[in-house]
Amino acid sequence: MLITPGNLLATVNTPDDLRKLPKESLPQLCDELRQYIIDVVSVYGGHFGAGLGVVELTTALHYVFNTPDDQLIWDVGHQAYGHKILTGRREKFYTNRFYGGLSGFPKRKESVYDSFGVGHSSTSISAALGMAVASQLQGNPTRNHIAVIGDGALTGGLAFEGMNHAGATDANMLIVLNDNCMSIDANVGALREYLTDITTSPTYNKVKDEVWNLLGKFSTFGKSAQEIVSKVETAVKSSVLSQSNLFESLNLRYFGPIDGHDVDRLVDVLADLKTIPGPKILHVLTVKGKGYAPAEKDQTKWHAPGLFDKLTGVIQKKTFTTPQPPKYQDVFGHTLVELAETNPRIVGVTPAMPSGSSMNIMMKAMPTRAFDVGIAEQHAVTFSAGMATRGEVVFCNIYSTFMQRAYDQVIHDVCIQELPVIFCLDRAGFAGADGPTHHGAYDIAYMRCIPNMIVAAPMNEKELRNMMFTAASDTVQRGKQAFTIRYPRGEGVMPNWKTPLEELTVGKARMVQDGEGVAILTLGAIGNYAVTASAMLAKEGIRPAHIDMRFAKPLDEAMLHQVFRRFDRILTVEDGCIMGGFGSAVLEFMADHGYMARVKRLGIPDAVIEHGEQIELHHECGFDPEGIAEAVRELLYAGDRVAV
Amino acid sequence: MLITPGNLLATVNTPDDLRKLPKESLPQLCDELRQYIIDVVSVYGGHFGAGLGVVELTTALHYVFNTPDDQLIWDVGHQAYGHKILTGRREKFYTNRFYGGLSGFPKRKESVYDSFGVGHSSTSISAALGMAVASQLQGNPTRNHIAVIGDGALTGGLAFEGMNHAGATDANMLIVLNDNCMSIDANVGALREYLTDITTSPTYNKVKDEVWNLLGKFSTFGKSAQEIVSKVETAVKSSVLSQSNLFESLNLRYFGPIDGHDVDRLVDVLADLKTIPGPKILHVLTVKGKGYAPAEKDQTKWHAPGLFDKLTGVIQKKTFTTPQPPKYQDVFGHTLVELAETNPRIVGVTPAMPSGSSMNIMMKAMPTRAFDVGIAEQHAVTFSAGMATRGEVVFCNIYSTFMQRAYDQVIHDVCIQELPVIFCLDRAGFAGADGPTHHGAYDIAYMRCIPNMIVAAPMNEKELRNMMFTAASDTVQRGKQAFTIRYPRGEGVMPNWKTPLEELTVGKARMVQDGEGVAILTLGAIGNYAVTASAMLAKEGIRPAHIDMRFAKPLDEAMLHQVFRRFDRILTVEDGCIMGGFGSAVLEFMADHGYMARVKRLGIPDAVIEHGEQIELHHECGFDPEGIAEAVRELLYAGDRVAV
Repeated sequence: MLITPGNLLATVNTPDDLRKLPKESLPQLCDELRQYIIDVVSVYGGHFGAGLGVVELTTALHYVFNTPDDQLIWDVGHQAYGHKILTGRREKFYTNRFYGGLSGFPKRKESVYDSFGVGHSSTSISAALGMAVASQLQGNPTRNHIAVIGDGALTGGLAFEGMNHAGATDANMLIVLNDNCMSIDANVGALREYLTDITTSPTYNKVKDEVWNLLGKFSTFGKSAQEIVSKVETAVKSSVLSQSNLFESLNLRYFGPIDGHDVDRLVDVLADLKTIPGPKILHVLTVKGKGYAPAEKDQTKWHAPGLFDKLTGVIQKKTFTTPQPPKYQDVFGHTLVELAETNPRIVGVTPAMPSGSSMNIMMKAMPTRAFDVGIAEQHAVTFSAGMATRGEVVFCNIYSTFMQRAYDQVIHDVCIQELPVIFCLDRAGFAGADGPTHHGAYDIAYMRCIPNMIVAAPMNEKELRNMMFTAASDTVQRGKQAFTIRYPRGEGVMPNWKTPLEELTVGKARMVQDGEGVAILTLGAIGNYAVTASAMLAKEGIRPAHIDMRFAKPLDEAMLHQVFRRFDRILTVEDGCIMGGFGSAVLEFMADHGYMARVKRLGIPDAVIEHGEQIELHHECGFDPEGIAEAVRELLYAGDRVAV
Repeated sequence: MLITPGNLLATVNTPDDLRKLPKESLPQLCDELRQYIIDVVSVYGGHFGAGLGVVELTTALHYVFNTPDDQLIWDVGHQAYGHKILTGRREKFYTNRFYGGLSGFPKRKESVYDSFGVGHSSTSISAALGMAVASQLQGNPTRNHIAVIGDGALTGGLAFEGMNHAGATDANMLIVLNDNCMSIDANVGALREYLTDITTSPTYNKVKDEVWNLLGKFSTFGKSAQEIVSKVETAVKSSVLSQSNLFESLNLRYFGPIDGHDVDRLVDVLADLKTIPGPKILHVLTVKGKGYAPAEKDQTKWHAPGLFDKLTGVIQKKTFTTPQPPKYQDVFGHTLVELAETNPRIVGVTPAMPSGSSMNIMMKAMPTRAFDVGIAEQHAVTFSAGMATRGEVVFCNIYSTFMQRAYDQVIHDVCIQELPVIFCLDRAGFAGADGPTHHGAYDIAYMRCIPNMIVAAPMNEKELRNMMFTAASDTVQRGKQAFTIRYPRGEGVMPNWKTPLEELTVGKARMVQDGEGVAILTLGAIGNYAVTASAMLAKEGIRPAHIDMRFAKPLDEAMLHQVFRRFDRILTVEDGCIMGGFGSAVLEFMADHGYMARVKRLGIPDAVIEHGEQIELHHECGFDPEGIAEAVRELLYAGDRVAV
């Protein structure tokens, strides 16, 4: 389905085209750009609200700054749809987030206008500062470097670290604070309240007006930037104390807040700021979902709504005649509340992912016992550790990919201290359309090398429930080990998932099917592919054994002794990196116990795997059901020793 | 050598004893405590300046608060010597940092007064908040939770994340900002300048006085805490704008700054603050090394000076008659300058470790091209990535243990983007006396599982130089892979270390000694133990082959094919965790290529290894020279298959 752009948008193939337009035509261009995003996303899916909120800002930035020589960095990056459309990718935009198509985030390989790849939040200030310092070193101190960061992303500690450094330099960079009061869910934390105060304070608005009047006046009369700055500072100082502002405390010159949907004003202000050297911040107020009423009204729902009817605002839902399996995240959310109802010590923690992790179920049911700490994974883990020292049973739910950001806290604050915090890693394995920045590829490897850490992965909903129940049990909590449960994005396999809770023995595997010739050892939900593969192989008369290992650490050594005594051809399958992962743990067992067997490991290879549907990526990596079946055949028919 | 405490200090075995003393005796107690620290550290070594700086604060905190029921958390923890002495560990204090002795940091296992183990910075606010929230949930909302954090630690993003959350709660916690302008080196960044401004601003000092006058007056007249708070706020608001302060922006009630060496005043102020509920911050000014003139004068040198003559202030230096090998860090520092002199694109980055990493050599030689970004590992890496996008050749030097804090940035900002940043991981392997929080145990495992990452470790100074030269070469920089070089704390083995620079082939190993029966594969400096072991074994007629693999990734596959064709008994040795480490990489090669050999891996076991001299810990873990020799013997004389 071809989506037709508006007449003006159709002429803009690069920012150079945009910059040739008269300023008066920008509102029309913005309307067309907004409409184009609505048209495409409603039919092809993708992130929605964030992109609509920055249509005017995107247009103004490319209009004023000389991209791609000036460096523009979009924090998180799902706000960059308009940017992609204006920078030569309009006609391919319908392939956004599809296998082989455009990435849903800025990506250096994709365009020279994407100066920094982003997916995780709060990186833009540090990256822009690095570029700005490099420009200084390379004799180009007036090049512009612009980081566009949301108020949600600003709560991440990395952003603060970046500001603290930037404020101590004279590097030429502009931080645009895109303040829409939202991450995916509503923002939380003291900073949020502070930004609201700024925007409603009469004192600040007075300052703001004086600043802008001055800027306007001096720009008109052609005075130099230095003079403007000096006058502005006098105005600021006469109204309020110097450094009266959080950002000014960090030596970042603060301007704003201004209306982020007034493209005319944005162009004027950005043009003025372009003449002011050094680090500075512009506070822009935007509305997530701007220009599409349903999205403005329910911003969380419309963060990434899936396909919808753009006229009615009705989001497409698949309908089924039979009960369907739930999402793993919902099994987590409901089971957590179920456990917490009988154990008052259970609490929940999420860093800004209440809806994505389904922690919102507990936040609604038990608001004093479930905590959204904002985009702050490091804090989420150390905060959990603090609670655990006082005997709380903490379920800390962090996407696998985001847990990378709290790695030190897991080691230093939890495991070295023998605190039994429970980590639930959602989106483990391939994240799907979000792509390489979001794949949960490394967690098995980086978690299992930590002492005092249990690493488990459920093959289905029942197993997830039982693992959660086990992790919170007195047995495990007294054992003083942290407990990681990793599970994938999306649906499970059990329509009737609300099974009775049973305590598992930590490190105990489960025989799914006995067999001969080859033993398949799987970890987690990917084990269901092995079931399918076994069914395919059965038709060929091949009947491998299949064991759901459940735990990457500790391994079920009794089971592995049986396996290595009975089998000399073993296949391991995991939805994680094969370097150092579960399969490597099996190799370690083999070597430590003097077994010699032919072991083949399937998993995510040592490469950056791009975006696509999970099954497409599993196929690409050779561990979809057909890949598993083929690996079994290869093992069966291979010689004893095939050195390359 | 027995160190005798002063008369008063000798009576204080617990904080309960302290709290029975009349307030008037506290200055004497502080004098005795300070003297005791000087006496013990001068003879037995350890951290020095930080502990001296908080003698009065430590005394006042334990005097006012009801420890251990009230929770006291010392950020970083090397400031906690006085705390240890006052909390029942005076007589064991001389064992501090020795193998089997007290830990140099607070440690939960060691004392009920150590409410949270700390070693890495910036964790205390999050931990204290977790405890405070747990106290609320457990029906004890008035329990006190105190985080003592330095101004250096405050620049870490985690501290900001914690403040942002704390300010949105009514949890009962006090942040004591111990402002001494120093980390190990002088602090940097905008925050540093801001804190200086606060302490010198007449406006703030006016506020301060009004606040304390009010507090004093009301306390005297026995008014309630609520009334006091209300009056204080009025006073603040009448003088300056509400939220005029960085901390108040985050909704943390700010008090101070006050003199941190006036124990009398500290006791009064803390007693007042104890009656004010909710999150609040007290800004205390201290001098690192206070009370010992040489330490006050050169604070970096006296952070951890080693043994010294307390009367003359002369630090003991070992004297040698022959040239000694340099520290690896100094080889790094000098070689970096040597490389940068011929390549203008080379820059250096350190997060607050200029002297510890020897980056200070480049900072002095080329001040515009070497950056100390403060305690901000995440920012250090993303800032490096930003510079790399603009063609800079970045040497980012971070201790192995601190690199854990930038793990996501290495994956997300560097490796996924194919940026050839060079990471130099100092203190890889056992850190020694700093203990488990500082051991660089996991880096091989957590780095090698990342795509686009090279992992190397030099066996000696020459190798380190050549690896640095190679990493900065056009060949590698064009290859778009990050390059990790890990090396240990302490001295190398080559007195004449300044060898000519040679470019290595990435992934190429080096045969140290050919042999028979067993092949020893080593990675890094630990390979020198294998040389010693080989010499021991030679006397027994055993002559193993020894290969310095140089690279954990990519492995030298040609060499490994040779090894596995010629040997069926292989020993791997690494100074890193054996779960998922270099030895596991060798197992993966073996399995992938269908070889079957008996492989024994030596390395750091899956346990928290405590502090001690490096050689003591290597011995404990069985990979000192004798351990390696014994492993070779075992392999030689073992049966073909020894299943347990």
